[in-house]
Amino acid sequence: MLYDRIYNFSAGPSMLPVEVLESARDNMLNYEGSGMSVMEMSHRSKVYDDIIVKAEAQMRKVMNIPDNYKVIFMQGGATLQFAMVPMNLMNKNHKADYIVTGNFSGKAAKEAEKYGKVNIAWTGKDINFSRIPRQEELKLDPEADYVHICFNNTIYGSCWDYIPDTGDVPLVADMSSCIMSEPIDVSKFALIYAGAQKNVAPAGLTIVIVREDMLGNVNPITPTMCDYTINAEAKSMHNTPPCWCIYICKLVMDWLLANGGLEARKAINEKKAALLYDCLDHSDFYVTSIEKGSRSKMNVRFNTPNAELDAKFVKESVAAGMSNLKAHRSTGGLRASIYNCMPIEGVEYLVDFMKKFEAENK
Amino acid sequence: MLYDRIYNFSAGPSMLPVEVLESARDNMLNYEGSGMSVMEMSHRSKVYDDIIVKAEAQMRKVMNIPDNYKVIFMQGGATLQFAMVPMNLMNKNHKADYIVTGNFSGKAAKEAEKYGKVNIAWTGKDINFSRIPRQEELKLDPEADYVHICFNNTIYGSCWDYIPDTGDVPLVADMSSCIMSEPIDVSKFALIYAGAQKNVAPAGLTIVIVREDMLGNVNPITPTMCDYTINAEAKSMHNTPPCWCIYICKLVMDWLLANGGLEARKAINEKKAALLYDCLDHSDFYVTSIEKGSRSKMNVRFNTPNAELDAKFVKESVAAGMSNLKAHRSTGGLRASIYNCMPIEGVEYLVDFMKKFEAENK
Repeated sequence: MLYDRIYNFSAGPSMLPVEVLESARDNMLNYEGSGMSVMEMSHRSKVYDDIIVKAEAQMRKVMNIPDNYKVIFMQGGATLQFAMVPMNLMNKNHKADYIVTGNFSGKAAKEAEKYGKVNIAWTGKDINFSRIPRQEELKLDPEADYVHICFNNTIYGSCWDYIPDTGDVPLVADMSSCIMSEPIDVSKFALIYAGAQKNVAPAGLTIVIVREDMLGNVNPITPTMCDYTINAEAKSMHNTPPCWCIYICKLVMDWLLANGGLEARKAINEKKAALLYDCLDHSDFYVTSIEKGSRSKMNVRFNTPNAELDAKFVKESVAAGMSNLKAHRSTGGLRASIYNCMPIEGVEYLVDFMKKFEAENK
Repeated sequence: MLYDRIYNFSAGPSMLPVEVLESARDNMLNYEGSGMSVMEMSHRSKVYDDIIVKAEAQMRKVMNIPDNYKVIFMQGGATLQFAMVPMNLMNKNHKADYIVTGNFSGKAAKEAEKYGKVNIAWTGKDINFSRIPRQEELKLDPEADYVHICFNNTIYGSCWDYIPDTGDVPLVADMSSCIMSEPIDVSKFALIYAGAQKNVAPAGLTIVIVREDMLGNVNPITPTMCDYTINAEAKSMHNTPPCWCIYICKLVMDWLLANGGLEARKAINEKKAALLYDCLDHSDFYVTSIEKGSRSKMNVRFNTPNAELDAKFVKESVAAGMSNLKAHRSTGGLRASIYNCMPIEGVEYLVDFMKKFEAENK
C-alpha cells in the first residue's frame, strides 16, 4: 500500500482515509494560511469556529439528522455516556430498560444502577451473546424512562438488524462501532451516542445526537460537563472541546460526502462483510458463532479449529502485513474489524490469506 | 517565522514546539514504520503502549513526581475536574475550602456545592481579583476534606507566588495554565490537575497527578470515568484514552527534557514576563491592574488608556503577524499569553510593537 501502510483490522481506534491523513499532514504547521496548527488555535477563533461549525453541518448532512436533534461533541468515550444517559434521562420514573447483547451493553446497565432502577429487558448472556433478541422476546416496561441498546457489539460481532419498537418509551442507542456505516433513520431514536474512534475520528471525541425534548431534566448531581442541556446550549463549547479530533471528524465528513455518503458506504460495507462471511460459511475449518441475521458488518468474529491455530493465524497475518486480527481477550479467537476506512482490497487480501492458511493447516 | 507561522498569544489552546509539529507531520501516515498513523492504532497495541508509557515516564522526569503519586491521563478538561475533585475527595467530612482568585476557581467552588459544603476561605471578588491572598488572610477550616486553589488565573493574569500552608488538610491545585512552566514541589500538593492545552498537549487531554492516599474513597454516584481510583489502577486505559493528545504530550515531554527541563523553562519564562512587565511599568500609556507579587508569568493582562485604543491595538497587532492579544470577554482589554512555547523573540517583537503603538497613540 501507499506509504508502506498495512491493513489494520483494529476494533478501534482504526483506519482513517489516506486523504484525511494527507490533509492533516500538509496543514500541520500552518493550517490553510492561519500561521498555526489546528492544535494551537484558540477554540474561540474565527478559523476554528469555521471548523467546528462545518464538522456539525457536514455530519448533519451525512446522517440526515432532523432539525429537532442537537449534535454535541463531547469527551470521555461511550463509557462516560453509560453514566451520562441515566444522569440526564432517568429522572421521571427513575427506571430504565436495558437490553444486554454483549460486553458494553452489560457495562452500560451496571453503570445506570448508580442512578436508578435498571430492568434487564433481555440478555444474551446464557447463549454467549450469539444473537440479537427478537422483538417479541423483549420484556419492556411501558413506564421506563428509556430503553437502552448497543446497536453493534464490537466484542461479540453481532448487530441489530432491525430497530426495536419501544412504543412511547424513548430509544437510546450506543452506536460506537457502527455509526455512519450505513444510513439509519435517526428519528427512530431519542438519543444516539458513539465513541468516535472507529468510523468518525481519532479517540478522544464522543458524538451525541439527542432529540430536543429529552433535554432539560437532569439529575442535580450531574457534573456540568456531563449535562447534555448545558453542552448543547453552548454548542459543544462550554469549555475547550477536543479541537483536533473535531477537525479530523470534519475531514472525515468531507471524505464521506465526496465519496457517495452513507448509501455508498452501505454498499461497500455489505460487500466487504459478504466476502468474509462467505469465506467462513463455505469453510469447514473456520467457524463463526454468531447466528445469521445477527451478524455484524463491522466486526467479523471467527475461530480456527483450536487456540494454537488461532495464535498461528495471528502470527502469520502480521508477517503478511495485517494487524489486530486477534479478538478481544474476553472471547478469544479471531476478529476482523472492517470499518468504513478498511478498503475492499484489504478484505480481499485477508480472505486470500484465510484460504491459504486453511489449505496449509487443515 | 519558519513555515510562515505567526506569534500566537492565545490563552489556550496555544503554541506547540515546531519540532513536535514536524515530528507529528512526518509520522502522520506511517508512525515509525508501524504502517499506520498514531490516530489509527489500537490503544492496546505494543507500539501505542510504548507511547503512553513513555509519556508518563517522561512527565515524571520533567516534574520530578514522587513515586507515591499516580499520573492519570483523563478527558473533559479542568471543568470536569471541578466535579471530579469533590466526587472523589469530599467524602470524609463532606466539606471543603475553596480560595477564589478568579473566574475558574469560582466555577470550581460552585460545582463542588453539588457534592458537599463549600467554604469560601477567601475571595478576591471585591477587589476585582487584582491579587492573590496572603497566608494570614485565609479562613481555613481544619476539618475540610481539602483546600482547592487555582494556581495561575488565566483570565485575570494573576498567580500564586507561594504555596499556601494548609496544615494537615490536603491541598488541591488547578494548574491548567502554569503546569510545567517552572519547577514546583509536587509533594506539597495532594492533587494537581491541568487541562493540557496550554503547556502540555492539544485540547482533549487532562493531566491528574494524585497522591495515592487520596484514592479509594469515592462518592458512589461518581461515573466510572470520573473515578480517580479506577482510572489510576487501569493506568489511564479503563477505556480508549485520547491517544493522539497523549502522543503529542509525549513529544512535548521529550522536547522539554532535550531543552533543559523546567529549570531552563523557568529562566526563559521569567525573562519573557520581565520584558513585558518592564514595558508596562515604564509606560504611562499602558496599565496593568494586577499587583506586583501576584503577577502571572504566563498571562500578562494590560490596557491602553481606553477601549477604542484597545480595539485598535488588537487590529494592528493582527496586521503585524500576532494573534489573540484580545483579553477574555469578562475582563476586556488586552492579554498576552506567553506559555512555554512562545519564543522570547515573540515577546521581544510584541514589546517593540507596544512601544511603537504607544508612541503613535499617546
